[in-house]
Parts: sequence; structure tokens; C-alpha cells
Amino acid sequence: MTEPILPVLADSVRLAENGVRILDRRVFPFEQDWVLCRTAEDVAKAVEDMVTQSSGPYFAALWGMVLAAREAAGLPAKDARAYLGRAGERLSNSRRTNNHLRKAVHFVLSEVDGVGSVAGTELVAAALGGAEAGDRAYRARSRALGEFTSGLLPEDGRVLTHCWADLYLVDTVVAAQRAGKRLSFVCTETRPYLQGARLTAETLAEMGVDTTLITDGMGAAVLGSGEIDALVTAADRVTMDGHVVNKVGTLGLAIAANAFDVPFLAMVHAPDQLARTGADVPIEYRPGEDVLSTLGHRTASYRVRGHYPAFDITPPRFVTSIVTDRGPFAPDGVAAYYREGEANQ
Amino acid sequence: MTEPILPVLADSVRLAENGVRILDRRVFPFEQDWVLCRTAEDVAKAVEDMVTQSSGPYFAALWGMVLAAREAAGLPAKDARAYLGRAGERLSNSRRTNNHLRKAVHFVLSEVDGVGSVAGTELVAAALGGAEAGDRAYRARSRALGEFTSGLLPEDGRVLTHCWADLYLVDTVVAAQRAGKRLSFVCTETRPYLQGARLTAETLAEMGVDTTLITDGMGAAVLGSGEIDALVTAADRVTMDGHVVNKVGTLGLAIAANAFDVPFLAMVHAPDQLARTGADVPIEYRPGEDVLSTLGHRTASYRVRGHYPAFDITPPRFVTSIVTDRGPFAPDGVAAYYREGEANQ
Repeated sequence: MTEPILPVLADSVRLAENGVRILDRRVFPFEQDWVLCRTAEDVAKAVEDMVTQSSGPYFAALWGMVLAAREAAGLPAKDARAYLGRAGERLSNSRRTNNHLRKAVHFVLSEVDGVGSVAGTELVAAALGGAEAGDRAYRARSRALGEFTSGLLPEDGRVLTHCWADLYLVDTVVAAQRAGKRLSFVCTETRPYLQGARLTAETLAEMGVDTTLITDGMGAAVLGSGEIDALVTAADRVTMDGHVVNKVGTLGLAIAANAFDVPFLAMVHAPDQLARTGADVPIEYRPGEDVLSTLGHRTASYRVRGHYPAFDITPPRFVTSIVTDRGPFAPDGVAAYYREGEANQ
Repeated sequence: MTEPILPVLADSVRLAENGVRILDRRVFPFEQDWVLCRTAEDVAKAVEDMVTQSSGPYFAALWGMVLAAREAAGLPAKDARAYLGRAGERLSNSRRTNNHLRKAVHFVLSEVDGVGSVAGTELVAAALGGAEAGDRAYRARSRALGEFTSGLLPEDGRVLTHCWADLYLVDTVVAAQRAGKRLSFVCTETRPYLQGARLTAETLAEMGVDTTLITDGMGAAVLGSGEIDALVTAADRVTMDGHVVNKVGTLGLAIAANAFDVPFLAMVHAPDQLARTGADVPIEYRPGEDVLSTLGHRTASYRVRGHYPAFDITPPRFVTSIVTDRGPFAPDGVAAYYREGEANQ
């Protein structure tokens, strides 16, 4: 068989000489615009503004920290380290629900701190080394996650997915294609930003996967039709007691899947030791006005207000399996991911 | 207290000298375009093309039959009756899932048949009398339905609704306002045609009701938040064993409401004796391309196909109450709506 095709979104945040280039997911695939962020602050702003999302902010934070190191290269070592610390704070806080950003920053800072008190080109080299290690680690973990997820899917199956599961989904499809599985997908459009209609649909098509698009309200009807073998989504976070925090809409699909006995697999590298349960995860509310328009065109009455919780929390009773880079866990057993005394992964 | 305000959509299909004027719900409220249908065939086409929907096709069929009578006025009585019969068939088949259309046609034909073999102005007068009776009956039943529904809602409550429940919703709000209840609403946008974002949101605003708009994927999160007192939707049909057929998306909301112990009230004039169970109701599939665009703008990848079941079927176990013009029924007891030997209502 031919090797799986890697889609554009699998490598959509890149370090360049003059900054970080980020593919603008707000207009993809209609336009392939790369936003150039010249500074770490520009990167943080781009993440806040949703230029990239899902796994994108993780890579943006890695390379953004390299820009911060370049910016601090002229400072004495101590001031440079303080500068990096502030840049890391700024990047980490650019979005709050997913903790990818903190992990990316941590990769760079721990490499910098590992080489001791450095400045100038040594500082930049250390930051670059940390970012590259963070990039390799994330991709390796996503590959493992994709292989485990593929292993849970039938040889010939139809999968419902929601929003855009990014590398987790790409790696699941790559693993399934290598294993000779024939998967087709149904994806939800995922209003208001339409990540499903644009990012997931386009990427699956790039990879040669048969894909059908439905609106967000059609998931239960499709799950009840008997045609779907599994609901598969990413999770922005999984708590230690098995709550799945993901793009708003996941909860409704999970409840419907449960009602119709369709397994729900939630993909995450690892559960988050910093979140014991759902109440420990801050839910991000984005501007309500975003619900009133669609890709810049007004689509609601001018007399109504919008409400936009960006994430919802699915209780463990509606989750079949949490698939991690160490394999699948029942939601009430996901804490077993960690070995005694092991740090947060 | 002041009298409730009647919104534009409460009277949006009107008979005129030169045809039937139908408010174009595809562009409302951004534009207030009235489509003039000069013939019964034009009316059928307008219904097929979704110029109007929900209760609109019922009124369109009533007045469309008056146009058919005008068209047939020059024919001998027998030919005129045959012409009306064909027009009624055409109108009834313009949409299939809801049986409002058949009922409207029946109102006119039974009045015409009641006056005996007529032609010319007598035929037109009989058709007009039948249509007016059909209009009065529908409005009276909707008022009763609205009063029963309002009676099930709290004094101070927050209601989630889906799609556009038309006169049933207007009459529920009117009854609640007359009873001094303070209701606020959350409505879903209802892709792909956005009936919730446009029709429901605008109409509730016209009526002075506090309204918040969410996307179709946010319903479960809102139902799980504890802020919603009831899920209230119309039903296009209710089967004799308590299945609720309504706009796609209702099923997912009903399952989520059930999971979070929020009552789901489905509003319908009467259950349908022609449908014993869900499998007896034909589900209308509309063009999949409609999912790929939003109000005329492409919103999905060019590489994906769309899928658009227009309705879904909610099993009785997810329904709390079916509210009719004779009061509320438990879904498994809705057959008791009919008295022994009574014809389909």
C-alpha cells in the first residue's frame, strides 16, 4: 500500500528567520494565509485571536519561546531568564482551558535552565533545543495515541467526530491506513468557528478518507441510525476522575452515543494531575457575538444576544474509553495512567 | 398589564386579490420580502422551496386552494372539483413529514363538497369559506395548546427551545404574558436554515421576551448547567405510541434533557392516527449541499459531501409530556387524546 498523505494542518506552525509563521485556521481551507508573528507577544495575540487552535497553540508556544529567547539575547543572563519567564506566562495565559500551552513553555524553560545561566546565542540555542524536543515529544505521543485509537476501531468502520482533533485524528487515520483499515468519517460542522466543516473535512479529504458533513444538531439522529461504530473526539483535558473537557457539543454527542450504545473514545496524551474533577477546569467563555455571525456574515436576528461557552464537560458515565499515549483506560480508572509519584504528563 | 404584542410571523401568509403573499422566511428578519404566488402551483413550489415552513405551509395550502378555486371557476362543476382535487394533491405532497398540508386541503375540499356540485363564484366562495374555517380552527387550537403549555411552565422560568415553533410558541408566550409569568428563552440557531437564530430570536424579541442564542451544539451544556426549567419544542408529528417527529436536533436535546432531569414538553395539536409509531412517518431528506453553505455563503470544505435529514424521531422514553389542544398527555398515554371512533384531528 502507499504511504498515508500528510495534510497541511499536520505542520501548520513553523519557525522562520523573521518570526513564527502560523497558518490562519480562521479562513482555511478557503484561503491559505500564513500569519507572520515577529515577536513572542504577536504569537500570544495570534493564539488569543484563534489564528490557530487545537494542537496549534502548543507549537505556537514552543516557537514563540524561541522568539522570546531571540528578543532577550542581548540581555545579561539573569534578565534574559526573567524575560523568558514573563513571555512564558503571557503565552500560557493566552488560552486557559487546555494546558498544552504551559507544557510547551515548560519544555523550553527546563532546557534553558538545564544548561545553566546563559545569554546571547547560547540562550537562543538552548531555547531552540527545548522547543525541538517539545515538538518531537508531542508528535511521538500523538503517534502512540493514534495507534491505540486505531486499534479500538473496526476493520471497516464509520466514525463520528466533532470539531477538529488535529494530530490525534491525523495519527489515528495514519495508523488505520497503515493497518489496512477502511474507515469513513462523519463530521459535525462545529459552529461557530466551523472547525469540523473546514479543518476536519478538508484534512480527511486530503488524506483520502470518505467524509460526510452534518450540522451540530444532527449527531443524535446519526448515532441513533445504527450506522456509526464509534464517536471519537479529542479532549482538551481529562480530569483524574475521568471527566472529559472538550469543544462544546461533545457532551451532547456523548450522551446520545451512550443512549444508543455507541462507544465514545476520548483522545488525550494523558489525564491532568492538576485537575481532580470537572469543577477544577476553568471553562473559557468567548464573545457571545461570535454566535451571531458565520465567517463574518450576520446570521442571527439583530435583536438577540449570543452565549458562547467554548467547552463542555462530559461526566465519566457517558465516556467509554479514554485513549492515551499509554493505551486506553476506563474513565473511572484513568488515574492509573500515572506511576507512583510520577510528575504530570 | 399591556396586551401581548403580535409578531410579524403570526400572520405571514395572506390571501390577496392577485394571489397569495408569503413572507420569505429564508431571508427574514434581514429582509421583509413577501413572495407573491399567483397560482396554486406557485404556492406548492414556494412550500417546496422553504419560502415558508413550520405552520406557514398550512396557511399557504389553505389560501393556495382558494387560488385553485379561482383558477377552476370557469370550468363545469365536475371538472372544477377534479381540478381542486389535483391541486390539493400537489399542495399536500409539497412536503411530506408534517401532515398539516393534508389537513388544510381537507378543510377546503370538505366545505366545497358540503355545498354540493358548484362552479364559478359559488365554488370560489365555498373554497374561501373552507379556508377561513381552517384558519380559525388552527388558530383556536394553537391558542388552547399555548395555554396548556404555559400552564406547565413556572412563574419565573427559563425555557430552551429549538427551531421555530411558530404559533405554538407565540401562543405559549401570549398565554404566559397574560398570566403574568416571567419567562426567558434560550434558542438554538438551528442550522442549516437558522430558523432559531432568525425566526425564533426575532419573534421573541418582537414580543419583548429576553432571549439568548446558542449554537446547536451547546444545548446539552446549557441543559446540564441547571439554568433551564424546561425544553419546549413543537412536533411536526406525534405518533400514537408517543414518538415525537420534529426538526432534526430535537432528539439530541431531548436525550440531554432526560439525562439532566429537565422536562421536555412537545407541542402538537393532536397525535396522528395515521402514524402508529415512528417507522410510519417518512423522514424528509433535503439536499446535502444545504449543509455546506450558510445563507448563501460557502462554509464547508469544497471536498466534502453534506447529509441533511430534516427531521429526527424522539422515542417516548425521552419525552416528558405531549401538550395538545386538549391538554398534556404522558407519551405512552397520548392515544387517549381520541374518543372512541373519533376521526383524526
